[in-house]
Amino acid sequence: MPDINVIAFDADDTLWVNEPIFNKAEEKCKRILSDHIEPDRLSEKLYETEIKNLKIFGYGIKGFVLSLIETAVELSGQNISGHEIQEIINVGKEMTTHPVNLLPCIEQTVCELKAEYTLMIITKGDLFDQESKIARSGLDQHFDHFEIVSSKTVDTYLNILNHYSISPSHFLMVGNSLKSDVLPVTEIGAHAIHIPFHTTWEHEKIETNETTDKSYIELEDISLLPKILESNF
Amino acid sequence: MPDINVIAFDADDTLWVNEPIFNKAEEKCKRILSDHIEPDRLSEKLYETEIKNLKIFGYGIKGFVLSLIETAVELSGQNISGHEIQEIINVGKEMTTHPVNLLPCIEQTVCELKAEYTLMIITKGDLFDQESKIARSGLDQHFDHFEIVSSKTVDTYLNILNHYSISPSHFLMVGNSLKSDVLPVTEIGAHAIHIPFHTTWEHEKIETNETTDKSYIELEDISLLPKILESNF
Repeated sequence: MPDINVIAFDADDTLWVNEPIFNKAEEKCKRILSDHIEPDRLSEKLYETEIKNLKIFGYGIKGFVLSLIETAVELSGQNISGHEIQEIINVGKEMTTHPVNLLPCIEQTVCELKAEYTLMIITKGDLFDQESKIARSGLDQHFDHFEIVSSKTVDTYLNILNHYSISPSHFLMVGNSLKSDVLPVTEIGAHAIHIPFHTTWEHEKIETNETTDKSYIELEDISLLPKILESNF
Repeated sequence: MPDINVIAFDADDTLWVNEPIFNKAEEKCKRILSDHIEPDRLSEKLYETEIKNLKIFGYGIKGFVLSLIETAVELSGQNISGHEIQEIINVGKEMTTHPVNLLPCIEQTVCELKAEYTLMIITKGDLFDQESKIARSGLDQHFDHFEIVSSKTVDTYLNILNHYSISPSHFLMVGNSLKSDVLPVTEIGAHAIHIPFHTTWEHEKIETNETTDKSYIELEDISLLPKILESNF
């Protein structure tokens, strides 16, 4: 793909493990609350609360913990104890310092690409969480630009491309979410590569009929990226 | 000041009212918890918890609410009820949709300056909160660039100036916090104007001896800004 000179990567579950950290935290809270709340009921109600709170709190660990507390208060019939609340907050605090585990072949692939391409991270979420993860990942030295955004829409990508004076035909986005990393990117005429991760948050899932237009490439593994860039795409 | 061509404004308590919203929320929580907790003790302990949590949660409403809950759990000897916890969360939710009240003369001053200067907002805090406030303020149409950052240090300003290719001698920062908006800016050789706000969060206060070098100007009111820019500073 001789036209591409800027490659942007999503971060959570594209460069490093993220969703399993949320799942693990949810499991811990199920155990903490198992005296009051049936575990499956907690998961179900938590998702409902999270979606309702998304427009109030946005994405990230702090909003997740507040939704967890709210769900626990409601499902326990307000019988939750102060001690249990503190335990939930502690689970949230642990999440903020959880080791940033890179996915396989990330460092090697990024190092291979940085000689030839301008590399960016475009990640959605909480500014504080994401900056901390970028720093802790050790990947920051390999990237030229970082954009932490509150949502990934067509306008988000147009603004970023405009800001850096990048033409859509020169821009490739790589990520695990069809909804956030692929569809809005192909819609503006830029390139996108989808690398699925084994776990996707319900909210990021989309119906298959939304993706009948296969204007993007799906890769199983990021290590295949340099080769595909040399091909005709 | 013929050299200046970019003016950046802090947002919270420079463009619009912010700290009083946190104070009002704290007062509400004191009333909610008055059966268990002596109001002054709550304020004191809350500040301690907030400072301890700052490096875990960062700035913003969500971190504030989590610190409030943690403080309430601890000071109540874990005897807080689920209902009270939910009431605290509701106070936090109200904060996220509190009307954005512009300070006097902001719109008129910004409109006057935008013909002649590139205008930016550089604001510290939670990405989601700040984006929402910028949109709700109605001021977004008058500004050229927005930077939401997690802290305002010398490096933060150097990165922003570098990113937009602005020389420090052409850059003026206007804000209410000596610690965040003035001192790191004058340290890199750029210009700063301090416009004090009647309330400053304890954490943003600095000792007077840190500011013996008066390399910045203090204005009482933002409406004086266009005139001072015409003068020799």
